[in-house]
Amino acid sequence: MMSERPSLVDIVLAVNRIRSKLCVTPVVTSTCLNDLTGRNIYLKCENLHKTGSFKCRGALNTVIKALENKEISISGFVTHSSGNHGQALAWSAKSVNLPCSVVVPVGTPLVKTNAIESYNAELVLCPPTPAARLETCNKIGHEKNYMIVPPFDHPDVIAGQGTIAVEFLKQVEDLDAIFVPVSGGGMISGIAIYAKQINPNIRIYACVPEGKMLSECLKSCERLWPNPPAFLNTKAEAIRLQQCGEITFPIMCDLVEKEVFTIDDASMIAATKFAFERLKLVVELASGCALAAILSDQLKTLDKNIKNIGVILCGGNIDINKLPWIENETKTKDI
Amino acid sequence: MMSERPSLVDIVLAVNRIRSKLCVTPVVTSTCLNDLTGRNIYLKCENLHKTGSFKCRGALNTVIKALENKEISISGFVTHSSGNHGQALAWSAKSVNLPCSVVVPVGTPLVKTNAIESYNAELVLCPPTPAARLETCNKIGHEKNYMIVPPFDHPDVIAGQGTIAVEFLKQVEDLDAIFVPVSGGGMISGIAIYAKQINPNIRIYACVPEGKMLSECLKSCERLWPNPPAFLNTKAEAIRLQQCGEITFPIMCDLVEKEVFTIDDASMIAATKFAFERLKLVVELASGCALAAILSDQLKTLDKNIKNIGVILCGGNIDINKLPWIENETKTKDI
Repeated sequence: MMSERPSLVDIVLAVNRIRSKLCVTPVVTSTCLNDLTGRNIYLKCENLHKTGSFKCRGALNTVIKALENKEISISGFVTHSSGNHGQALAWSAKSVNLPCSVVVPVGTPLVKTNAIESYNAELVLCPPTPAARLETCNKIGHEKNYMIVPPFDHPDVIAGQGTIAVEFLKQVEDLDAIFVPVSGGGMISGIAIYAKQINPNIRIYACVPEGKMLSECLKSCERLWPNPPAFLNTKAEAIRLQQCGEITFPIMCDLVEKEVFTIDDASMIAATKFAFERLKLVVELASGCALAAILSDQLKTLDKNIKNIGVILCGGNIDINKLPWIENETKTKDI
Repeated sequence: MMSERPSLVDIVLAVNRIRSKLCVTPVVTSTCLNDLTGRNIYLKCENLHKTGSFKCRGALNTVIKALENKEISISGFVTHSSGNHGQALAWSAKSVNLPCSVVVPVGTPLVKTNAIESYNAELVLCPPTPAARLETCNKIGHEKNYMIVPPFDHPDVIAGQGTIAVEFLKQVEDLDAIFVPVSGGGMISGIAIYAKQINPNIRIYACVPEGKMLSECLKSCERLWPNPPAFLNTKAEAIRLQQCGEITFPIMCDLVEKEVFTIDDASMIAATKFAFERLKLVVELASGCALAAILSDQLKTLDKNIKNIGVILCGGNIDINKLPWIENETKTKDI
């Protein structure tokens, strides 16, 4: 049986698997950001990726790998997702001409559900709790013989997200650290597995919303989170899970810095606005979380030898009719 | 005396002059855009450039070349500009540690004037007519011994903008056409000089706001525009000059397609929104003008052999507190 923790080889194989359908995302720099931080900041633009986020990497890797296995027959794919992974799986399934169902909690932004439907996936609404999402997803998988592709806690998904690091370390050869927004932990796990083997001195920092308790959990290497799993009180809906995964958390304990960057919503919004205004990039609040860490006072306390810092701008799926720095309701909203 | 029309060599020299201070802008693609048009669309992201537009190329080339000339002594630089060229010159002057004055018409968006001032340039307001801008600019140049760097009608500015084509033709080797938003014509002239010599079969199309009369002028190779020079009635303030330049227009007559893409404001706004929503790029309406041409019915009438189309997303300087698809006034506007 396959190990649950993907290896560097799994990540390199994932690169080969996805490369014909996915572009290499650009890295951009900003003198303004370098001046503000006194370090060299490199922004990996996953917001410019297919479906608007990094999630297409893990979803596509999982889908293609499943079809390579001739011993099982799959009729389609299903997932539960706050949106980005749902879009990514819908797109991936469409790219291999198989059907897809996506379970999303009531209240998911229209910009995300519209996009899922634009990739021909069936949209299934469920109550906004982690338990209800899992249950609905399992039911569809069982009834339709669809493979369940979880948003993060799966080795092929993690390996797919790890391809970010393969590209990034090729694009910027001397990165001292990478800042990664964290929800379930799939992206940071994949990045850490690859990057720490290529360069054991590189530091991988998690950037999270308030209430995540990640620093305590990483320091003790224990799942201190209360059950049942809860959503955080943050506007950054792509990173609102409190708990990391059963597969991802042990990887994070081994490879990710114990020092966590915890970001309040106001700082995420300000950083997102900075990305629009100064970097000319449309990013979602989860990207703003990592950018806010770079702009934080906490960054100033980091070792000065951490000179070249990579930042993952993980996605760009934000409702541009309802930008978070425009306070009142706008006319376009209700049309 | 130097010829007024820059050569291919001038453009290659400009590449060498500016390369240490400016990045190569990325080219992005979009399956959605390819599906909508039935062609391969390549977007050159000048919105991601220093100062938020392509204008840094021409300004920096002119500034550095002026300082290479040991026979004249320059105390600083001055220009009149609707904003983007002003920002670009301010940044270029700052990068060589010389002062800069920028003459802008009353009513220029705050996002642009703030940016000019952020590069330490002196801001000089004038009435919003082309004549007043020129006059104020000449006065400052004379009084302070500043070199006047016009926004487009100067061989070094044109050569600098031509560096876009050097990069673009390297990034995408088999471009059949390039779509370029046009105001004074500096960018399209520089691009056309380089691209048509590298590949005489490439077609260079101008994209302009309504009222520009460019097609008539190009077809007759005559300046049919009324005098004094007027501004067009368009929300795309970066491309609101009616007349092209005295140097640029003859270049355009020789090298640019007579078929012009004329775009109304509503189409520019829709295309700009498309860029935000689907491409995850912050662009200004002038970029939306070129993108709207790509999305227009007119494009469908183009020769089917024009398969690989480059589009210049010329800039990203848009007021993100006042996006044109959000109709009502927002709270943040008056803060």
